[in-house]
Amino acid sequence: MHAYRSHTCAALNKSNVGDTVRLSGWVHRIRDHGGILFIDLRDHYGVTQVLCDPDSPVFSEVEKVRSEWCIRIDGTVKARDESLVNAKLPTGEIEVFVRDMEVLGAAGELPLMVFGDQEYPEETRLRYRYLDLRREAMQRNMTLRSDVVASIRKRMWGQGFREYQTPIITASSPEGARDFLVPSRLHPGKFYALPQAPQQFKQLIMVSGFDRYFQIAPCFRDEDPRADRSPTDFYQLDMEMSFVTQQDVFDTVSPVIAGVFEEFGGGRKVDDPATWPQIPYKEAALKYGTDKPDLRNPIEMQDVSEHFRGSGFAIFAKLLEQEGTEIRAIPAPGGGSKRFCERMNSFAQKEGLPGMGYIFWRDRCDVLRGELGELNSQLVKAERRKDTESVSSISARIAELGAEIDLLEEEAKKTGKRPVEAAGPPTRIGPERTEAIRQQLGLGVGDAAFFLGGKPQAFQRVAGKARDVIGAELGLTDQDRFAFAWIVDFPIYEKDEETGEIDFEHNPFSMPQGGMEALQGDPMAVRGFQYDLACNGYELVSGAIRNHKPEIMLKAFEIAGYGEDEVKSRFGGLYKAFGYGAPPHGGCAAGIDRIVMLLADQQNIREVIMFPMNQRAEDLLMGAPSEPSSDQLMELSLRVLPRE
Amino acid sequence: MHAYRSHTCAALNKSNVGDTVRLSGWVHRIRDHGGILFIDLRDHYGVTQVLCDPDSPVFSEVEKVRSEWCIRIDGTVKARDESLVNAKLPTGEIEVFVRDMEVLGAAGELPLMVFGDQEYPEETRLRYRYLDLRREAMQRNMTLRSDVVASIRKRMWGQGFREYQTPIITASSPEGARDFLVPSRLHPGKFYALPQAPQQFKQLIMVSGFDRYFQIAPCFRDEDPRADRSPTDFYQLDMEMSFVTQQDVFDTVSPVIAGVFEEFGGGRKVDDPATWPQIPYKEAALKYGTDKPDLRNPIEMQDVSEHFRGSGFAIFAKLLEQEGTEIRAIPAPGGGSKRFCERMNSFAQKEGLPGMGYIFWRDRCDVLRGELGELNSQLVKAERRKDTESVSSISARIAELGAEIDLLEEEAKKTGKRPVEAAGPPTRIGPERTEAIRQQLGLGVGDAAFFLGGKPQAFQRVAGKARDVIGAELGLTDQDRFAFAWIVDFPIYEKDEETGEIDFEHNPFSMPQGGMEALQGDPMAVRGFQYDLACNGYELVSGAIRNHKPEIMLKAFEIAGYGEDEVKSRFGGLYKAFGYGAPPHGGCAAGIDRIVMLLADQQNIREVIMFPMNQRAEDLLMGAPSEPSSDQLMELSLRVLPRE
Repeated sequence: MHAYRSHTCAALNKSNVGDTVRLSGWVHRIRDHGGILFIDLRDHYGVTQVLCDPDSPVFSEVEKVRSEWCIRIDGTVKARDESLVNAKLPTGEIEVFVRDMEVLGAAGELPLMVFGDQEYPEETRLRYRYLDLRREAMQRNMTLRSDVVASIRKRMWGQGFREYQTPIITASSPEGARDFLVPSRLHPGKFYALPQAPQQFKQLIMVSGFDRYFQIAPCFRDEDPRADRSPTDFYQLDMEMSFVTQQDVFDTVSPVIAGVFEEFGGGRKVDDPATWPQIPYKEAALKYGTDKPDLRNPIEMQDVSEHFRGSGFAIFAKLLEQEGTEIRAIPAPGGGSKRFCERMNSFAQKEGLPGMGYIFWRDRCDVLRGELGELNSQLVKAERRKDTESVSSISARIAELGAEIDLLEEEAKKTGKRPVEAAGPPTRIGPERTEAIRQQLGLGVGDAAFFLGGKPQAFQRVAGKARDVIGAELGLTDQDRFAFAWIVDFPIYEKDEETGEIDFEHNPFSMPQGGMEALQGDPMAVRGFQYDLACNGYELVSGAIRNHKPEIMLKAFEIAGYGEDEVKSRFGGLYKAFGYGAPPHGGCAAGIDRIVMLLADQQNIREVIMFPMNQRAEDLLMGAPSEPSSDQLMELSLRVLPRE
Repeated sequence: MHAYRSHTCAALNKSNVGDTVRLSGWVHRIRDHGGILFIDLRDHYGVTQVLCDPDSPVFSEVEKVRSEWCIRIDGTVKARDESLVNAKLPTGEIEVFVRDMEVLGAAGELPLMVFGDQEYPEETRLRYRYLDLRREAMQRNMTLRSDVVASIRKRMWGQGFREYQTPIITASSPEGARDFLVPSRLHPGKFYALPQAPQQFKQLIMVSGFDRYFQIAPCFRDEDPRADRSPTDFYQLDMEMSFVTQQDVFDTVSPVIAGVFEEFGGGRKVDDPATWPQIPYKEAALKYGTDKPDLRNPIEMQDVSEHFRGSGFAIFAKLLEQEGTEIRAIPAPGGGSKRFCERMNSFAQKEGLPGMGYIFWRDRCDVLRGELGELNSQLVKAERRKDTESVSSISARIAELGAEIDLLEEEAKKTGKRPVEAAGPPTRIGPERTEAIRQQLGLGVGDAAFFLGGKPQAFQRVAGKARDVIGAELGLTDQDRFAFAWIVDFPIYEKDEETGEIDFEHNPFSMPQGGMEALQGDPMAVRGFQYDLACNGYELVSGAIRNHKPEIMLKAFEIAGYGEDEVKSRFGGLYKAFGYGAPPHGGCAAGIDRIVMLLADQQNIREVIMFPMNQRAEDLLMGAPSEPSSDQLMELSLRVLPRE
């Protein structure tokens, strides 16, 4: 028999009854039922119940075993009593009676229980990651990650791509984030850098004629930590193709991404790639307040400035007198209650805005009936007080209201339209404008609309967040769906509001739409062949058709204030290569961690990484970073500056 | 039609004749045949001949095109004349008449020709790597590498392994080589390290219960450059399994490796894994002079000390009086000529040894016939000189020799054994010992044996090299074969000859055979469950069953002079993990670069890496390493020491 196991802990079933078997695994749980020891023995594949009573020659040894000891047992497979069969376990029909046991690895007292769902501080989980990783959820997340990456590879191969590895110890590549540097021992005073992305290398691979490249590529950015981002390194599906248009890239990547989400989405609906909208950046900003909209949420914002211009709602009317301002409405179907509207208003205030105006629409008959109810209870009180004056005036008012309600109901029957009443501060613009807004937004009784005004860049982010919250709170956002959209036509440049300086909006490698000609006009009007794929509010993929023409590249950099010499010194390898017959090419990169987070329904990147850093960029398990020896520093010709 | 191509440059054949097509690619070669321009248009997939004559509307533009310009052409597919069909090209039946052309990327004057086989200095090749990579051999090597890695992945998945990524920015892990350090910005004065191998992480993954891990893992060692090793980073197929014995690892890895070599070996014979020998380290050292023997070479060395002890061959006899010395023979079937033996002797001298003794065996009749021939020519000369005295003495000798030859031939006929004569200095040990050596080595007429004496560690390496050279020169080494052997039973410790200090022979993580008990005896006698896979003289794979028991780990380190505190500080993560229920586990790592080099029949690692460093660890293309900005150094709290 094999030294450690004849079967895994997921393999035995009724057909093995009577067999002598050998299992190895961890003691998941021990129970003592009237002198009989029941152990759930766990390995990577599953759990098998083993038991031992005083008849077993190793009973006294098994008694000593504790949780998470790694043991090997030999025993006989027995069928469980019908009543004890566990249909949820593949091995639930049987149990193994232990005849021999060997302790393969004992365990000390556990700082973290593997069995059960107890929560532990992140510090504990990272320091004892090997115990944390034994837990069911982490086993699931890690195998999911592995399976997702494998599936991506198979799908990319299927699309005719080959994976090529690019250097990890390489040159500083100024792409926006901060480089990790690596001091060179052989060249004292000089440093390598870890790549922020293989951007230049993959473009060089295209210039080298390889046509279709991909890589599950480690990327390194020395960033200040965030929950959804590793402070050191992360993985991207990086890909690039030659002789393609933007649409070719979409047609290639979409089925890969959709396929992965279908395969691992656990039955959640995945939009058919053929239906993924292509939304221009500007339109996305207007409708969703973000370039990574969550399209599971059907709410689309609209510009309603015209209804407020010169209106009686002074705050907005005044705002609109300033240049570049507008009023945007977030329609909220089903949000038509004062309570909900006030909650959303407070949300906007918490996010740093003065608040959101709102209107909500009610059924006028319902409003009147509400008043009627109120009057009735006043009437009762007045009668109790024997206040005959009040009784008569209230009664008159009740009669009036009753008549009004009857009239409205009758009219509603004739016209088929229920009478609508709007409430909320902006109704001060008057019933006509209020009604025009309602009609523009397609809202009705029981709905609300929120309004934000000012320069879009000042409120847009909060508007987007409000849209998310409204969609979620009103149950409009379909939680069991992955909704995708390509965001296109990103501007090439952005202008610093304060200095007026123009810089690249994204990376400097994208081809401007319209080429050289476009660059000779207004830079802020130039859009790039540059795109993102948004999914459920996250940016999953980002890419571009590249600027492969040296003269257009120089011009594009010139606009951003870089002279020819600087281009040559900072991007010399790539720029020079473009002078030797560069093909048109483009591609994209997709965040692996993000994809797995979405599929595993996790908010924290550390749930989908085997050995993550903590938020202070420390590896608590291995003890990194640490102080180097003075020999090491000497070899690298470095000295650490004393702290001030 | 697509913006760039309706077909690739490998797609068109007779069935497309008459079609209007669009192709994009590089101008591989242009020829002008009487005013008609022929262009071999090349892309990643193949070459298509396109042509253009003055009837084409774009003739004048096509005339301007030069080598390696990237162009797009539209044209009509025509069948080639029967006599002009190129059967070697998939597109050899057709050519495309150009009607439109667009220059996608022009090229300056080329520092390196893509077409043809011209050799260029490495400096040029690396600086213009994107041109170098367009060459046919480099395209082949790179796609081979990619396909090999893909095949390895598929085979590992097929064996039930999952790929898990381990950290790249991590802690220093003293495993023998020098770490690359990465200064931490958030923790001034502290450094991360890039992993020399994911050794500790993969063991932690086993402790975490993942059972079967693999990774195509980047490994980083700051090493002084060598032709067959990257000076910075390289890739390994890294794998680890739980609940396994050494044989389980062999049974798992062997079919993966054999499968890859069969798939990509280009028809070269691959030994069946079932027949791969397991050779103990000591035996390999004796028989092959190395722990990575080339088994395509059938030569096995032998200890022949007994034949020389107290013999008349004073050099060896005296040597053997010293302790720890021995005489080893390299049999050389077919090497039985003085010329060959002397050449091998000079080889040993060039390698720094005093030389190799040798004996070679000839057919005595042939030797006598040689003498006879010599005497006959002396006779002719003596007769010319009319030196009657000499004539008569030579004639007598000739008669004698003739008789001896007849006698020997007659006896050979009777016994079926040809008469043998040995030559070479060690024959001074006398005919009996010489004959005993011949019999031990199983040699005969036409063969030779070489002898090296002294302490094995002093001559073993050269002996191994001599074995390689002898095998190659005598045509014994089958060039069209991949011959594998597992080398097993490596010693755990080695002793420094000078200081007498004991240290780990390999890495400190291997389980000693015999466990704790073995460690209580003579350390130098302890062998590990540690193994290499040798192929054609290279170490392809290296691995071990790990020492997963904390108490045995401490003892093993104690022998090598490490106290408990040092173990805890240097390998704390792993050591501590072993105290929480560690499974028995083992695995190995295989060099990807080495495998691809063998398959691509390349001697230099830079032929199988897309963007390699040069031998001074510089990236000539991207310009790394480079001087950091003072801001960068400031952020990292570092100062570069002035050079002395």
